Amino acid sequence: MKLATVSAPDGVTRAAVLDGGVWRALPAPDLSAWLRGGRDGTPGQALADWEPVNPLPTPGKVICCGLNYAEHIAETGRDLPAHPTLFAKHADTLLGPDQEIVVPENAAVDWEAELAVVVGAPLRRAGQAEAAAAIAGYTVANDISIRDWQKRTLQWFQGKAWDATTPIGPIVVTPEEADPAAGLDISCRVNGEVVQHANTRTLVFDSPALLAYISTFTVLRPGDLVLTGTPGGIGAAMDPPRFLADGDIVETRIDGIGTLRNRVRLTPST
Amino acid sequence: MKLATVSAPDGVTRAAVLDGGVWRALPAPDLSAWLRGGRDGTPGQALADWEPVNPLPTPGKVICCGLNYAEHIAETGRDLPAHPTLFAKHADTLLGPDQEIVVPENAAVDWEAELAVVVGAPLRRAGQAEAAAAIAGYTVANDISIRDWQKRTLQWFQGKAWDATTPIGPIVVTPEEADPAAGLDISCRVNGEVVQHANTRTLVFDSPALLAYISTFTVLRPGDLVLTGTPGGIGAAMDPPRFLADGDIVETRIDGIGTLRNRVRLTPST
Repeated sequence: MKLATVSAPDGVTRAAVLDGGVWRALPAPDLSAWLRGGRDGTPGQALADWEPVNPLPTPGKVICCGLNYAEHIAETGRDLPAHPTLFAKHADTLLGPDQEIVVPENAAVDWEAELAVVVGAPLRRAGQAEAAAAIAGYTVANDISIRDWQKRTLQWFQGKAWDATTPIGPIVVTPEEADPAAGLDISCRVNGEVVQHANTRTLVFDSPALLAYISTFTVLRPGDLVLTGTPGGIGAAMDPPRFLADGDIVETRIDGIGTLRNRVRLTPST
Repeated sequence: MKLATVSAPDGVTRAAVLDGGVWRALPAPDLSAWLRGGRDGTPGQALADWEPVNPLPTPGKVICCGLNYAEHIAETGRDLPAHPTLFAKHADTLLGPDQEIVVPENAAVDWEAELAVVVGAPLRRAGQAEAAAAIAGYTVANDISIRDWQKRTLQWFQGKAWDATTPIGPIVVTPEEADPAAGLDISCRVNGEVVQHANTRTLVFDSPALLAYISTFTVLRPGDLVLTGTPGGIGAAMDPPRFLADGDIVETRIDGIGTLRNRVRLTPST
């Protein structure tokens, strides 16, 4: 199944499922609410002219993995990890699949194309099989990072937690239609130029491994989101480093899921 | 004012304010809800035999500062910071003022007595004066840390985000009754032995500075919690390192606010 939160021209949103090229309404205002409510209900009315927006507006937890593609680890000069590197961001960081990324003009803004896993069932101290069965689906994310703030201290959080800078979507694809372990191409383009290109089969810690690991110390609930890390090709690792400029178009794509297309807008810093 | 979330013997909770030694009901089930609702309502019925529990069960954000007391920074071997070191934890980490801290027996469990700031008004791109005016009050916290997990990777999150390990409370004291900048003694005792003892006037980044800094990149809302960092004396910095054992009693105290008293219970690891 292909799922989305779709919006009417007046801004009203509904959870929806794609049925023969047409979005049909599910009984919830968005996929966050639909997942928390137990994924109930049969598809209803067709929603012509409704467009996908941020599919998961209110996750309780957004947990991110860093350093999870072998070649990205190599470009940061590190060894392959024994444990996933994790940090948290808040739901406020999320942005729709075609919204503008608005950041201060003096910020070092970088891209990080990522596969995002959507949790569909409660998980606590789960093994990998239970974790795999609890995956509601996958979506695309770009963990846009403010590198100068990220590197101000030892902890990355303040470079990762800027409100409305992490686009996700445009849709959530359920596991029977998308298998990251079998291999999905993931890429990031800036103004049409490919800057990142990898395959999800090369993830060091795959989706069930990440969910199981996280569930050792905290409960995951329906609608929670786990970002699985970014491949090589970030701007900060280029020589010289390259950051996003006003008007740049960032396209983040995972084959079989879809493409985010976000324009960068730099504003006078306050 | 002294505020709390108090619980009846049957587990029902209410927001409450202390009035002449008696808790009086405020019109909300807990302080999180009362703060989000605008702090409205006059004190109602006396709640005899109700006891303070976790005052803030549902903060939207819990943001923590590390390395914020000069002598704790010295014991970690680092220079005084130009910027606060920040990380996030989830509301699920929080625990009541006298509840057991339950962790696996093989974990390296350490203490971190902290002053916690409670946000009372929305803050975004705020200056320090606006941030100071938005402080609803202060409470006591212990950012109990699983050091072996904290040190597995570069990011501390997985050692800080264990469910139900961060006691807070017992009450929230409003700013006119407690001034951390003027100086409040903060201490941690383990089985009666003082292991941490400092004064909040020695914080490198005080409460308004932290709230203003965080509000540069994300909105803070009523009920959000900012933990301001821990003084010197953590177990991991002792020679040899010292960690909490089954049955240990951790008492976390800030003069003028109150004392947390939590027993450690180690369980067979899964």
